[in-house]
Amino acid sequence: MFEPPVQRLIDEFARLPGIGTKSAQRLAFHLLNAEEADASRLSEAITDMRTSVHLCARCFNVTADDECAICQDLRRDTTIVCVVERVQDIPVIERTQAFRGRYHVLGGAISPIAGIGPEQLRMKELQTRIETENIVEIIAATNPNLEGDTTAMYLARSLKPLGVTVTRLASGLPVGGDIDYADEITVGRALVGRTEL
Amino acid sequence: MFEPPVQRLIDEFARLPGIGTKSAQRLAFHLLNAEEADASRLSEAITDMRTSVHLCARCFNVTADDECAICQDLRRDTTIVCVVERVQDIPVIERTQAFRGRYHVLGGAISPIAGIGPEQLRMKELQTRIETENIVEIIAATNPNLEGDTTAMYLARSLKPLGVTVTRLASGLPVGGDIDYADEITVGRALVGRTEL
Repeated sequence: MFEPPVQRLIDEFARLPGIGTKSAQRLAFHLLNAEEADASRLSEAITDMRTSVHLCARCFNVTADDECAICQDLRRDTTIVCVVERVQDIPVIERTQAFRGRYHVLGGAISPIAGIGPEQLRMKELQTRIETENIVEIIAATNPNLEGDTTAMYLARSLKPLGVTVTRLASGLPVGGDIDYADEITVGRALVGRTEL
Repeated sequence: MFEPPVQRLIDEFARLPGIGTKSAQRLAFHLLNAEEADASRLSEAITDMRTSVHLCARCFNVTADDECAICQDLRRDTTIVCVVERVQDIPVIERTQAFRGRYHVLGGAISPIAGIGPEQLRMKELQTRIETENIVEIIAATNPNLEGDTTAMYLARSLKPLGVTVTRLASGLPVGGDIDYADEITVGRALVGRTEL
């Protein structure tokens, strides 16, 4: 219905999560009417992020270097690792200032329904870290829902034989929720009250 | 909090209408985890639209040519012009198949609160068209809200002295609404029942 270049942009926006056809139209026409600089900044920011950013070789956080700023920080406790599902969960934990260890990003949670088992996550990489780094505690900071709980149980079962303590964020997080929507105080309390599995 | 290239993309997404910080984060991380082809297609679609598309010299619809497909269509009635606020309103009217004339895109509606008067809209261009083309009727298809009604009244007052009939889309459109959310039947009825101002 629209000129092909406009329709193509609408289609691309509509492929993004949470963007319907109507929102995609609004976004496309907004960019059509926006200053040239605004439109090109967005386009460049996408390309730039994809070319300049990749995953930390150690913890799979996002970084422009080989290792992320947290892994490179010599003041951090390297014996304790907080395991999160996704990169965007790290800033949530960081903002609490209740954790001074390192991270490990699994890349998701175990979900038989979605066909995601331990092999689809970065479990092997975590085991290798435990074998080669001097780690004594793993905090399972997976989401407080079915998939996150399953993943935490799996972490406990598979990692305790390697001689590490596996803990879970305390309840206090709303059940069925999403960790990256929680406020700092809730996440902070959950960190302090973490329980051994 | 995030790596600068990621944060920049989040900021750019958050500048778009209807996208908050949280949605912007989701979009950025979606693109970070997406296939390289998906991310570059969106980036290219933005650039491509901005370079290949501009406004029709006659009616200010979006086009890749000098004039849009509707203005170039010899089968259309050139004596009747449907005046809309925005480019995205044209497909809504077209889908009704109840209108076979041409269009004129004002680029908005009169809104004293937003500081938009007739000078900020393409009123002069419309007057020039009436003086040089053989137009006998102007349909004011502005939104059925305060700004759209004001604009329709202004069109009637300023264009009737030029010898054209000025009509308004019939009521039937939900008052206070937005024309590009209306369904075809409602817009079709409103076209058929249009009233002279």
